[in-house]
Order: sequence, then structure tokens, then C-alpha cells
Amino acid sequence: MKPLSTRLTEFFNIDHPILSAPMALAAGGRLASAVTRAGGLGFIGGGYGDADWLTNEFAQAGNTAVGCGFITWSLTQKPELLEQVLDRKPQALFLSFGDPKPFATAISDAGVPLICQVQSLRDACHAVDCGAKVIIAQGAEAGGHGEKRATMTIVPEVADMLARSAPDTLLVAAGGIADGRGLAASLMLGADGVLVGSRLWASEEALVHPNMLQAAIKATGDDTIRSSVMDLARLLKWPNRYTARVLKNPFTERWHDDLEGLMADQSAQAEMWGKAWQEGNVEIANTFVGEGTGMIKDVRPAADIIEEMVSQAVTCLRRFSAV
Amino acid sequence: MKPLSTRLTEFFNIDHPILSAPMALAAGGRLASAVTRAGGLGFIGGGYGDADWLTNEFAQAGNTAVGCGFITWSLTQKPELLEQVLDRKPQALFLSFGDPKPFATAISDAGVPLICQVQSLRDACHAVDCGAKVIIAQGAEAGGHGEKRATMTIVPEVADMLARSAPDTLLVAAGGIADGRGLAASLMLGADGVLVGSRLWASEEALVHPNMLQAAIKATGDDTIRSSVMDLARLLKWPNRYTARVLKNPFTERWHDDLEGLMADQSAQAEMWGKAWQEGNVEIANTFVGEGTGMIKDVRPAADIIEEMVSQAVTCLRRFSAV
Repeated sequence: MKPLSTRLTEFFNIDHPILSAPMALAAGGRLASAVTRAGGLGFIGGGYGDADWLTNEFAQAGNTAVGCGFITWSLTQKPELLEQVLDRKPQALFLSFGDPKPFATAISDAGVPLICQVQSLRDACHAVDCGAKVIIAQGAEAGGHGEKRATMTIVPEVADMLARSAPDTLLVAAGGIADGRGLAASLMLGADGVLVGSRLWASEEALVHPNMLQAAIKATGDDTIRSSVMDLARLLKWPNRYTARVLKNPFTERWHDDLEGLMADQSAQAEMWGKAWQEGNVEIANTFVGEGTGMIKDVRPAADIIEEMVSQAVTCLRRFSAV
Repeated sequence: MKPLSTRLTEFFNIDHPILSAPMALAAGGRLASAVTRAGGLGFIGGGYGDADWLTNEFAQAGNTAVGCGFITWSLTQKPELLEQVLDRKPQALFLSFGDPKPFATAISDAGVPLICQVQSLRDACHAVDCGAKVIIAQGAEAGGHGEKRATMTIVPEVADMLARSAPDTLLVAAGGIADGRGLAASLMLGADGVLVGSRLWASEEALVHPNMLQAAIKATGDDTIRSSVMDLARLLKWPNRYTARVLKNPFTERWHDDLEGLMADQSAQAEMWGKAWQEGNVEIANTFVGEGTGMIKDVRPAADIIEEMVSQAVTCLRRFSAV
């Protein structure tokens, strides 16, 4: 069954207009391939870039067609990883958080579609200039890194821009889409499909500590915060414009309004945070999840999540099918 | 034509599931009555509370049925205004930004439906306890005052809570809904209707300086910011949790990251800001509009805006009517 055919399902020859987010550390080959086998398109999260990790995760995906994503500013520091991934002939190369321009030609020359995730109308225009085949408009309700715009407005505004300037470029909504209601809503806003992060992070195939999964299940959407403390605690040099949404915990409570204090004690805090991350101590290490966490009530196989998302979206749409 | 019948249209006996926001200063009787005559339900913005202004604006609305809204924490300081408005037999009494509890009994005793606008799941639960007939879940993409949650997630999460705890309580989505796509999306998210602010603020009937309307038309959704500087510049004592979304301008650029500096020079800055507001100097006084400003391209009669919103929503829904 392919009830929700869109330009996105045609472009990638998939059954459902659902992409999985290339979540750094959490989205390995097992999740990516499960999403593809379920009729969506799965992405391995190349993240901050580790050649061995990538080799291993592509091996996990086996022969299943998947895409791969990178944190753009980080890829700039390890540009050789792009070639490694392009050699694997991914279904698409997904860039977010930085200028995609330096990589656009290599990706295009490899015959791989470029997907640019953006967080503002301005960056969406730039992504068009860089030759993106698909633009992902990401709202700040998303888990992990992002900026300030909301999904509800950035999606239709980018849709209008594309209709004027680049009508063949596809549009995908990201941020806060955790079930079929969000999928149906995104289609109404003018998206050709959705990118799902948190809901697939809470799947059996994702690489996530069980304590963090349990914390996300317990949390409501009120319990998240956008902050930079986790990046400082990981010694990561994220550009200031990007923050990450996580579950609030005593660590964010302590440092969110005192970044200077955190920086003054950075190496000790980083050691503590890193140890807590390994141990799954969610009082210190942060659970990377978006506002959609309030709709996550269980950890399930990715295929079940996608099937239910499609089925619920169809139910929502049918409620108004007689208009 | 009533193509989008929902529990909200039944409850208020209106044609379209669209309420206009009771925007302080901007939403007078002319706008409220125009919205009602167009098939929605219009609200006068009682705002910070001015008895003479309210008398005048209810007179402007004439015999047309309208509702009225107040800023809850401000109403606490002038509780006599509630009686004045309840005597007018409004279609609904709309409270936002503070605890509705102290007013709930008087509103209920007057036979007037209580509408509570909330910005978190926690406050939605409290609104149910206060006997709200309609809960408006407002995302931070909205113009003017608000908090942090996004429309895309707070609406379905509150819908789930209501389904469990108060299935007869209606749900309305607010924040970033500027055209028919946002209306259709909100229905998919589980809302019974929408509250429209910015788009109706940019109507011929709203009380807005023409320079601010022009600034909003030129702006994209990237050009807004949530800040407290305008409240400090108006000597308004808003609780810290609430900020207001406005167009960025040199005044916000100067003070947004230096609230202490602004407070140190508050009376002089307030005098300058107030003068700029009167004159429509948008470089100093701020234009109160949400991220949806990027979808506002003209100033039109409220009836046209509502008609087009409904018609566009129907078009969006019909695209997937065969699922």
C-alpha cells in the first residue's frame, strides 16, 4: 500500500514520504536500513565524522539502499569522509548546519542527490543556489541541533519561495513530527514529505542508551530545552547560531544561564558529562530529543513506527475527505 | 458554504472554525464584528484593561456577536472590568497569560463559555481544572506574547491529554497560522479550529499604524524575535516567563542582550519608544507580528482573509481526498 504518494516518493522510488533523520551517534546502519525496508528512506548519521564508524555502519546496512548525512561545519574539518561515503553510492547526501557550497560540486559529480536541511528562509534560498534537490525545512521544536524558526511557518514560507524560484526542488518538513498527525499536517503545509528524528530515535534499531529512552518516554514536550551546555560539555565547537534541544536535567538547570561558569570549569565538566553519557546517567548527560517526546510512549521497531504513522495520517486526512 | 464543520463550529454556531485573536490595542470592535460577519468568531482585545476603550469598542461591534479577551495577570489588577464585559453577554471570555482560576466561577455563573489560551501542557491541564470549554494551545511562533512550545507539538499533545481527561473540551490551535495551509494542518493535528492573530492584524479593520503594516508585509519569518525589551520600554510588568514576538529592529538589536542596560535607562527609553509607537516609527517601536508575517503580502478586509483561508484549506485537504 502506498496511500501517500508525493513527489518525494516518486523521486526516491519509495512507498512512504518519510525520511529518517541522520542523527549523529544514534542513527546507524541498522536503523537506516530498517527505515528503508519499511518503505521510507533511511539515513546513516555521519555526524562529526569517524571513518571507522561509518565503514561499520554502512556494513550494518548491508545491501539496503540508504542515505548518509553530515554536520556540515564538521565535515569541513574532515572533507575526505565525503569521498568515502560517496563511494558507497548513497541514495542521497544530507548536509545540515553550515554552508553546503564547498561540497555541492563533488556530490553532484558523483550523481548523488544533495539534500540540504535549513533552519531559515535565507538558508533555503542559499540551498537552492547550491543545487539541492531536496530542501528540509527544520523547525526549532526538533530534537538535537537547530535554530529558531518553527515548522508551522518555515515549511509554507519555503514552499512559496520554491514555487517562485525552484519549482522542481522538493520540500520536506522536519521538527516536531512524531506521529501521523504531524505527517498529515506537514503535507497540508506544502511539504512533499517529512523527516522524522525523535520518534525513530526511540526505536529498537537506534543506538541509544536504554536510560535515555526511558527518560524520553516519561517526559512531556514541556520538559525540553534548547541549549549549548551539552556542546560545551563535549568540547564541540558548534557555531553560536545552533543550539540543541534536549531534555532538561540538573546539568542544564545548573549551567544553561551560566555558560561562562561552565567554560571556566570546562575540562572537569566534560569529563563528568562524558562518563555520565557512557553510563546513561540522565541526570548529567542529556537526552537528545525534541518536543515531540510528549507523543512518544514506547520503543518499537522502526517498521511499526512508520506503518502506524502512515496509517494515522490516512485516518486524519479521511476525516476531511468530504470537503 | 460551511465546508469545514467541526465541534467548534457547532459549539459557537459559526460557519468556519476560525477565531480572531483578542490582540491588545489592535483588535477592536470593527475587526471582531467583521470576523463574526465573515463566518468566524471575532474577539475584542481587552488587553491591559481600559474601561472607556472597551465601552467604545463594544459599541463599534454593534449588535454583532463577539467575544472578548483579557491578559489574565493584568485583569487581576482591574477585576471590575470582567463584570463590565460579562454584562455585555460576550460569546466567550478569553483569558491568556496567567492563572484563570480566580475568574472562572464568575464567568461560569454568567453563562459565558471560558476560553483559556495556554502555552504548555501543564497549563492546559490546569485550564481543564478551571472548567475551560475551549483550550487554545499557542505555539511560540505566534506574534505578541507567548512562551516556548511550538504549535506543531503542543496541539497534538494537548489533544491526547483532552482525549484522556476531558473529551468534551474543545481544542484550538494558535501560532503561525496565517493561511489555509495552517488551518488544514491544525485540523490534522487534532484541533477543532484555529485562532488567527497576525494575518487578521494585517486587515483593514485592525487598529494598526500603516507603517507597521508595511513593515510586516516586507518582512520574512526570519525577521522576528521573541523579546522582553518592548515590555520594558512600555513599563509593563509582564511575568518573566512571557516574551513577545515582534519584528527585529534597531531597538531590539540594541537592547535584547542588555536588559539591565535598558532598565538602567528605562524612563528615557520608554518615552522615546512611546513617541515612536504613536508616530509609527518602526525603527524604534516594534511591530507585533508572528513568524507568519512571511506569508502576509497585503492588507485586506477580514472577510476576504477568512474566505481565502477556508478556500485554501479545502484545496489542501482535497489534494489527499483519495487516500
